[in-house]
Amino acid sequence: MIIVLRPGTGEKEVKHVEQLVLAKGLKTHTVIGEGMTIIGCIGDTTSVDSRLFEVEPCVEKVMHVQEPYKLVNRAFHPEDSVIDVSGVKVGGNHLALIAGPCSVESEEQVIEIARAAKKSGANLLRGGAFKPRTSPYAFQGMGERGLEILCTARKETGLPIVTELMSLEHLELFDEKVDLIQIGARNMQNFDMLKHLGQTKRPILLKRGLNATYEEWIMAAEYIMAAGNENVILCERGIRTFESYTRNTLDLQAIPVIKSMTHLPIIIDPSHAGGKWWLVEPMAKAAVAAGADGLMIEVHNDPANALCDGAQSLKPEKYDALIQAITKIAPVVGKQV
Amino acid sequence: MIIVLRPGTGEKEVKHVEQLVLAKGLKTHTVIGEGMTIIGCIGDTTSVDSRLFEVEPCVEKVMHVQEPYKLVNRAFHPEDSVIDVSGVKVGGNHLALIAGPCSVESEEQVIEIARAAKKSGANLLRGGAFKPRTSPYAFQGMGERGLEILCTARKETGLPIVTELMSLEHLELFDEKVDLIQIGARNMQNFDMLKHLGQTKRPILLKRGLNATYEEWIMAAEYIMAAGNENVILCERGIRTFESYTRNTLDLQAIPVIKSMTHLPIIIDPSHAGGKWWLVEPMAKAAVAAGADGLMIEVHNDPANALCDGAQSLKPEKYDALIQAITKIAPVVGKQV
Amino acid sequence: MIIVLRPGTGEKEVKHVEQLVLAKGLKTHTVIGEGMTIIGCIGDTTSVDSRLFEVEPCVEKVMHVQEPYKLVNRAFHPEDSVIDVSGVKVGGNHLALIAGPCSVESEEQVIEIARAAKKSGANLLRGGAFKPRTSPYAFQGMGERGLEILCTARKETGLPIVTELMSLEHLELFDEKVDLIQIGARNMQNFDMLKHLGQTKRPILLKRGLNATYEEWIMAAEYIMAAGNENVILCERGIRTFESYTRNTLDLQAIPVIKSMTHLPIIIDPSHAGGKWWLVEPMAKAAVAAGADGLMIEVHNDPANALCDGAQSLKPEKYDALIQAITKIAPVVGKQV
Amino acid sequence: MIIVLRPGTGEKEVKHVEQLVLAKGLKTHTVIGEGMTIIGCIGDTTSVDSRLFEVEPCVEKVMHVQEPYKLVNRAFHPEDSVIDVSGVKVGGNHLALIAGPCSVESEEQVIEIARAAKKSGANLLRGGAFKPRTSPYAFQGMGERGLEILCTARKETGLPIVTELMSLEHLELFDEKVDLIQIGARNMQNFDMLKHLGQTKRPILLKRGLNATYEEWIMAAEYIMAAGNENVILCERGIRTFESYTRNTLDLQAIPVIKSMTHLPIIIDPSHAGGKWWLVEPMAKAAVAAGADGLMIEVHNDPANALCDGAQSLKPEKYDALIQAITKIAPVVGKQV
Repeated sequence: MIIVLRPGTGEKEVKHVEQLVLAKGLKTHTVIGEGMTIIGCIGDTTSVDSRLFEVEPCVEKVMHVQEPYKLVNRAFHPEDSVIDVSGVKVGGNHLALIAGPCSVESEEQVIEIARAAKKSGANLLRGGAFKPRTSPYAFQGMGERGLEILCTARKETGLPIVTELMSLEHLELFDEKVDLIQIGARNMQNFDMLKHLGQTKRPILLKRGLNATYEEWIMAAEYIMAAGNENVILCERGIRTFESYTRNTLDLQAIPVIKSMTHLPIIIDPSHAGGKWWLVEPMAKAAVAAGADGLMIEVHNDPANALCDGAQSLKPEKYDALIQAITKIAPVVGKQV
Repeated sequence: MIIVLRPGTGEKEVKHVEQLVLAKGLKTHTVIGEGMTIIGCIGDTTSVDSRLFEVEPCVEKVMHVQEPYKLVNRAFHPEDSVIDVSGVKVGGNHLALIAGPCSVESEEQVIEIARAAKKSGANLLRGGAFKPRTSPYAFQGMGERGLEILCTARKETGLPIVTELMSLEHLELFDEKVDLIQIGARNMQNFDMLKHLGQTKRPILLKRGLNATYEEWIMAAEYIMAAGNENVILCERGIRTFESYTRNTLDLQAIPVIKSMTHLPIIIDPSHAGGKWWLVEPMAKAAVAAGADGLMIEVHNDPANALCDGAQSLKPEKYDALIQAITKIAPVVGKQV
Repeated sequence: MIIVLRPGTGEKEVKHVEQLVLAKGLKTHTVIGEGMTIIGCIGDTTSVDSRLFEVEPCVEKVMHVQEPYKLVNRAFHPEDSVIDVSGVKVGGNHLALIAGPCSVESEEQVIEIARAAKKSGANLLRGGAFKPRTSPYAFQGMGERGLEILCTARKETGLPIVTELMSLEHLELFDEKVDLIQIGARNMQNFDMLKHLGQTKRPILLKRGLNATYEEWIMAAEYIMAAGNENVILCERGIRTFESYTRNTLDLQAIPVIKSMTHLPIIIDPSHAGGKWWLVEPMAKAAVAAGADGLMIEVHNDPANALCDGAQSLKPEKYDALIQAITKIAPVVGKQV
Repeated sequence: MIIVLRPGTGEKEVKHVEQLVLAKGLKTHTVIGEGMTIIGCIGDTTSVDSRLFEVEPCVEKVMHVQEPYKLVNRAFHPEDSVIDVSGVKVGGNHLALIAGPCSVESEEQVIEIARAAKKSGANLLRGGAFKPRTSPYAFQGMGERGLEILCTARKETGLPIVTELMSLEHLELFDEKVDLIQIGARNMQNFDMLKHLGQTKRPILLKRGLNATYEEWIMAAEYIMAAGNENVILCERGIRTFESYTRNTLDLQAIPVIKSMTHLPIIIDPSHAGGKWWLVEPMAKAAVAAGADGLMIEVHNDPANALCDGAQSLKPEKYDALIQAITKIAPVVGKQV
């Protein structure tokens, strides 16, 4: 941490700020430049609130040098983490192919989609039982009955299941029944929930918040890991920008950046990002070419009658063609399908 | 709702889309323009997922005409709502002046600040007991003990208290002890929490999410009201933009816009928006001049040793000077202090 | 400038980076912390491209300490600059009140609006002769004829005129005839134009680009000043955010921030920011309360038939009421109308 | 265009708005729904300023149905445009590989880089002679001498050249000497410049502004085409978002969206987007997989001593490896290298 003092700060004030730093258990190293003095703070600054020093009138600004994250940090864990989701490996040279409907609507629907997706190459089944909806008047999901349907579909197809947890009162149920617990973008900084996710060892699929910086996102992962659960997979699903033609802007730079900052796997959800089915195919290919560890794609056998987000769902035959293309791109970047 | 068809759409496809609309219980009114056909959908579209129609290949886009919100809508409730917070009126021509430390740190601290703030004119006391922090290693607040301290300060000063609810397991406790329950920006779309807030009649202070549109924000209020609690106050606290010199960008246009869309009171938190104490004073004055129903300001007697956000806190004497200036501006816009 | 090295960087690499810094005419001061080494660079770094050092594999990041601007910097010019626009003072405790139609449409129109605005208290007349339009098919302004009409209106009313320069081929003409030359948001980083503006001594009204950071904006002012023209007034007119209900988001925090960074006057354009006439009044009051040095407001005698932006124009009677309110707010913040 | 009226609008007001619409040469079609009346406007609305109608107190909002662009519109020109850049085809199934240094620094430098890039597969040479720099104190490029060096390099290697036009006073020179004239992000809405670009038939490489919507970007292309030059290639180079770890956020969804809206080629510049050399490789691969018509990549033989943007330049050997990978991905999406 570096404290930059305002031009003209006197010796006495410099000493005062140094004392404040020392009181936090850090060492100081002061550099006097041309018309500018800075105080370097040496030691573990992870739990020091740097904004405190900004209160001093002589302090111009405080700059961070050290990353505030530890457990997710690649610097301390150079190899890729590979997460085991009930036998399916995510990370390293593996490619996770998560497919399924936005919402669980019926047993027949889910099983039909799951079978088709598996045939195309999908290795994990998604489906929303509890749905986060902007409007209280919109379909909120089938709830626990939806979860049972997913379990049946798993039994029928052998695909482990992924579904979103909306409320802590269901955590125990999810821990028992769900293979990969999804935390949605809107709960990425629901810190109370993040802390409780450390009580399970179930893998967590942590979606990026719509306006979360890379650092905030991985700090959310750090919360889960610090609470005891190391099985975290990150999922980019589009961020909010000024552009409104697409639902969100898919940030594929997140792939190399997250892999540089952390050792965790990162998968891409092109369905929610663009919000239009015809954007899914090109963006899925791009994600794999950029080195993503997996894809999460909405597949629906009857998009026109889907209860939610049909506009962004692929029909099974389009999904099949996509996976075929991806099978050709993956080896170029060292991934196996 | 209006469905715009692609140029060249045939009669048969038009009929097909009309059938889809009729199946949702709406009536259709189709207009054939020069090289463009649109289908007007007449009826209550609040619970119809318009994106469904986008699945049809002949549909170019679907445009919303009707607002998706009802209970918060000024169109159906033309007068300003005035919320009673344990005797303090918020809304109409009243000005709520909420002041206090970011975090509760000790009984002495809170009482000293509360007394000073009250003397300056504050009519509500704020203080964080449970703190949302980006880092799991940062101070997380005093918890239930902090809440007790706030209750003691209320007893000492008579000021009703405002504090943030982070977890539903504390809802009952808050319902019993807190005068105005604050929901933070990061929980604005924690839909599970919003639904449960309808179980109490306690006034809710609903902060705007960092990237929430006006519509999403008031849909969050609609969630609470639809669940049974009509006592909602909105709070703008800055949105995230590309500018990083300030913590967030304070959006004061929110004041007239929210007052046009809804009948709910809106207050402004200039402390969190800018993140720097010297921005609080000009922005607080601006907020009142723009017609805000109140101000939520961090006041600390010893900012340099605050456990959280000292950099954005005003000292009591600066707060006092600010309230004096505001007392002159408020009558110009029809507010009484 | 501070260069942060990656953990584990060896002594030889540290020396190598130090050599690179010395080669730029700077001195170095290296601090070795726990698992982290930083190199402080001492001297004038204004013209050093810091990103160069990022090329080195051992460099984690480069952080700026010194501001890259000099002539606009309040640190080197503590008093407010007051700019003289043909006798009207802008800055200090003066309040510039710029009013007029979006586009010049006819002599009668401009003179009628100018007279009404002057009667209400306006001291500068605005009007677009050359218009920046997103579409090549939209009305592009009356051009030189429009400029003549503005000159006639000035003669009739005594109000100095403000109008936008779109092309350098008109610079000489503007230098001769216009009192305050406006540079629009879209040309804020037209560096070729900025350099040429130093050839005149005419005051320049430099609008903030829709996505310009504070630093970029004042660096644009630095361009003009470095080229020889010190008469620069800044104008905030809304930035682009994710919110699309309003045309742009008005950033009033810009007022105290710009006044802290620079000694230049800053005025606010609430008409373009919100894009709706009913947002102008509350935002204009807010701007004055926040300490703005002036307001630029669109006034039109017949908004429904305006050739451009009628939706954001005030009728003269509404403008009059607004100025009356502002006359009461201005003294509270030390401004005289 | 659809005009939505406020609830409760009377028959007389409806008639009045209809009259306004008819006066613009459009036909009306009014639909009266439950508690809501809308007026459909039929005819060519391209040159009608829809915001005019918003002035009427009874108008809630005006919604656009028709696209405001014609010449770039794929609806009227279904096949891909293929632009000929001095013999190199851009668009269709061709892949443009533009490479070279950020700035022209010397003849030796440019020729060495050009030879290496050509050997790897590049078919166009880039290099900045006139540089847009945020600071007036930064290196502004070699100017006309730089342009001469590019011409020499073209003679030596046979590669057509691409370079940025900063000022209209150089348009004639560029028209004569440059194969593909680049317009930078900051000049994308320099409407005066766009109009003049119609005076040449030289292909134009139009970069997307940092905060330009898709529609604004293609309207800028429409300006050039409406002025007489049909040879426009679009270039995505990253947009500005809240994330500041990367210089900008690369928006690869732009590829399918632009191809859906227009018939113009679109190429990607991953160097400027991320601002870090190690992001170039994954993003270049992703761009090709998403269907881009080309890549514009900074290559430098000595990044550590580059005069500009060395941090985002690839060394020739890394560029060579990248092109080899791309050669494998391109055929999967129907492109030939």
